[in-house]
Amino acid sequence: MSAAESYRRLLAHLAEAQTLASCASALEWDQETAMPPKAAAFRAEEMGLLARLVHERVTHPSVGAWLADCEADPALAADEDAAANLRELRRDFERATRLPSSLVAEMSETSSRAMEVWKEARQKSDFALFSPWLHKQIALHRQEAACYGTPEGGEPYDALLEGYEPGMRSTALERIFAPLREAIVSLLARIGEAPRKPDTALQRARFPVPAQRAFSRFIADRLGYDFEAGRLDESAHPFTSGMGPGDTRITTRYTEDRFLDALSSTMHEVGHALYEQGLPKSERWGQPLSEACSLGVHESQSRLWENQVGRSRAFWAWALPEARRHLGGELDRHGLDEVVGCANAVEASLIRVDADEVTYNLHVMLRFDLERALLRGDLEAGDVPEAWNARMRSDLGLTVPDDARGCLQDVHWSNGLIGYFPTYTLGNLYAAQLWEAAGAAMPGLADDVAQGRFAGLLAWLREHVHRHGRRWRAPELCRKVTGQALAHGPLVRYLEEKLRPVYGF
Amino acid sequence: MSAAESYRRLLAHLAEAQTLASCASALEWDQETAMPPKAAAFRAEEMGLLARLVHERVTHPSVGAWLADCEADPALAADEDAAANLRELRRDFERATRLPSSLVAEMSETSSRAMEVWKEARQKSDFALFSPWLHKQIALHRQEAACYGTPEGGEPYDALLEGYEPGMRSTALERIFAPLREAIVSLLARIGEAPRKPDTALQRARFPVPAQRAFSRFIADRLGYDFEAGRLDESAHPFTSGMGPGDTRITTRYTEDRFLDALSSTMHEVGHALYEQGLPKSERWGQPLSEACSLGVHESQSRLWENQVGRSRAFWAWALPEARRHLGGELDRHGLDEVVGCANAVEASLIRVDADEVTYNLHVMLRFDLERALLRGDLEAGDVPEAWNARMRSDLGLTVPDDARGCLQDVHWSNGLIGYFPTYTLGNLYAAQLWEAAGAAMPGLADDVAQGRFAGLLAWLREHVHRHGRRWRAPELCRKVTGQALAHGPLVRYLEEKLRPVYGF
Repeated sequence: MSAAESYRRLLAHLAEAQTLASCASALEWDQETAMPPKAAAFRAEEMGLLARLVHERVTHPSVGAWLADCEADPALAADEDAAANLRELRRDFERATRLPSSLVAEMSETSSRAMEVWKEARQKSDFALFSPWLHKQIALHRQEAACYGTPEGGEPYDALLEGYEPGMRSTALERIFAPLREAIVSLLARIGEAPRKPDTALQRARFPVPAQRAFSRFIADRLGYDFEAGRLDESAHPFTSGMGPGDTRITTRYTEDRFLDALSSTMHEVGHALYEQGLPKSERWGQPLSEACSLGVHESQSRLWENQVGRSRAFWAWALPEARRHLGGELDRHGLDEVVGCANAVEASLIRVDADEVTYNLHVMLRFDLERALLRGDLEAGDVPEAWNARMRSDLGLTVPDDARGCLQDVHWSNGLIGYFPTYTLGNLYAAQLWEAAGAAMPGLADDVAQGRFAGLLAWLREHVHRHGRRWRAPELCRKVTGQALAHGPLVRYLEEKLRPVYGF
Repeated sequence: MSAAESYRRLLAHLAEAQTLASCASALEWDQETAMPPKAAAFRAEEMGLLARLVHERVTHPSVGAWLADCEADPALAADEDAAANLRELRRDFERATRLPSSLVAEMSETSSRAMEVWKEARQKSDFALFSPWLHKQIALHRQEAACYGTPEGGEPYDALLEGYEPGMRSTALERIFAPLREAIVSLLARIGEAPRKPDTALQRARFPVPAQRAFSRFIADRLGYDFEAGRLDESAHPFTSGMGPGDTRITTRYTEDRFLDALSSTMHEVGHALYEQGLPKSERWGQPLSEACSLGVHESQSRLWENQVGRSRAFWAWALPEARRHLGGELDRHGLDEVVGCANAVEASLIRVDADEVTYNLHVMLRFDLERALLRGDLEAGDVPEAWNARMRSDLGLTVPDDARGCLQDVHWSNGLIGYFPTYTLGNLYAAQLWEAAGAAMPGLADDVAQGRFAGLLAWLREHVHRHGRRWRAPELCRKVTGQALAHGPLVRYLEEKLRPVYGF
């Protein structure tokens, strides 16, 4: 068989696997938005079966053989598209085939049991209950990391991080996180001593859910989300599912007295969805070139629309009259300064998912440091609460009243997402750096936003980020688009510039 | 391998195939209720892939080998459950393996193209456009029938009918349809000359859709539909999807000025859903014993709740106050007699799906006779409009103004559902015969219904119909439950008794 033929078969085979995986995405979306409760057990069986069929396909020995054929071919190596696909497919194949199925089964079983225990432990705020399960999760993830092998220039943690942020290393993160942390602590000090505080009363004003729903749809549409290729629904935890060509769905959630949160959720998911809608899925289904670059890059798209756009003064100059039109009365009594202040208020708090744009990153770094220490063996699972609480005190000046509001707050460790947290702050960093580059490339960007025109920004992101899929790893994509390696500077500058007028420091 | 082991493997293998088929059902439900339009092309690929994987599994040579092992085993033959499963699995395997894949592909391709042409032909009322496609569909279905082989004591049409109503033969249908037709024609004559006509003004009264929605949910709940294991949504064409254990979903549709139609749709789909919820899917997933007996029996469950229950005076004695409570004002001006008359008005009309309970069967018989003539070669596709129009005149006294309201009205022939129509009238026949048996077994049935108590009826149907799945073929099930072979008498008696007070004949 010619290498070209091997390549064709490889892609066809993987496109089919991807189509099966996409069926699972559709069922998952259904599970979160529509499925009746008594269907849960059977749905788990369906998902298990689809996962097994996908895994069988992506780890099939033919994949290895086709890959080897292709890799030996100079013509494919010289073809930029093919070379990028093959590089990423080799990586995926290696990762998919390195774990023994016994370990996969044990991890999956452990995660579902640990999740149950975690729910109870969090509810009772009883860390002792969860401690042995955290211990077991760490042990299993050390095994997992050992199977993958430590990436070049890395440590065991990197083998897990690599699953979410290919090409990223923890030492590289450390080099960015350290000055970022310093800058944030200094920023928080200035905010603490600032002469002004934003009036946040509006955060609790009540607006009927149907009106909020209409406003969210209006904003999503104006940002460029294609409703003909998607839906906006509601779920307990907002999410985006880019389930296939022409089908990228988002959810949000509305609470009467939290309209800014609902809007942020919507804009966040719209950001994810615009990325999914911008990937060349129709043309390259099943190829890495049509897949998201990394979780960090994905998060950068959601954060850019949620924060750089959605919390900007320019955005609200346009959006406030629109919000008044949709939400009515109450908003007439609040001016632009107040809304912008409200959307950008900074205050240290215990819970990551409720955190503001600044302190959020401290929550993430805390988890990153503890995870690394756990994996290295420098920290025992049982000592996590103490380490957590000490860090909350030193970083955020807060006393953790109980573990439910401390180290038991997040689902990640129970369901086995270890190495995942850094991608949240990576998202913020990439977003700020991309936003700076977009601003440099489009001097009229703020004016556009202030007039509700987002097509230019979206086109720029499509051109520079979305359409490339996994052509380059995230660090390289960042250098190509912004001219610089990822650094803390843009995020710090962005936060300072935005918060200065709000707090008057 | 022991026969017991072959049986175990056979059932496990088919349960997995059924789980995959169920994923397809979930995607189909999504397609009808939620999917964004641009996802259509990709969804077709997903469905195609799942269909192929299911087909590969159910026609796998191992299935034949396991079946042969099992069939040779006296212990399995003596086990009533296993014997029923094996009888039906053999049938399914034979049918699934007899069609060459080239014919399957040609039929599938032809159907999707014929559907497109039919849509245009119906829209333009231009039969000439559709005629060659109908010709082709008939030719392909003759080939299909030849592959299956004519069932014992049957004709080629029976090979197709067998796909929808196992064990039924067209000569048996003829023996029931002939006297039914005669009785209906006589009933229509009496209705035509009757001294009273029901006042049908209420049919067009307007009720807000949200109130109708709440009323539909209320009724579905009271009939016994388990909302914890299902949902009630809206779609252009109401349907039921019994997609798996704990997951049976229904849809209906509401129009402001057609509240009785919406209620009928809901009760119809609830009837289908109660059957699905009553099949022993959790215990016997993938086994014929947990599957619906036939389309006719399925339709009997929907028609029984829609008609025998939902159009009865007893039902409205309870439901009218409830309807007033939900739908308000307008209904206060209409009494029980008027509502019952309105729900039971009989009037010949051109369109099958809008037909009343009596004339509906004439529409079905017309199609059955034309389909048989087409398959036998006694009627040419090009001559269908003439045959159709003549029959509408003789049976219903109506002049067909154009083919859109004549032989182009139904989707079935374009998408290849030939041999399917009789199951609609079979549903009416089984419903009436089961209803008579239920009434005989539960003398208080009408009183129960008049008080909104449906649990006894549902329990009776669960006990006598639902829990058996495909244990017996429909004709045998009918004999076992009602003590009689299927006949026209119960349906005719039911219609006459109900319509006599309405029309005063």
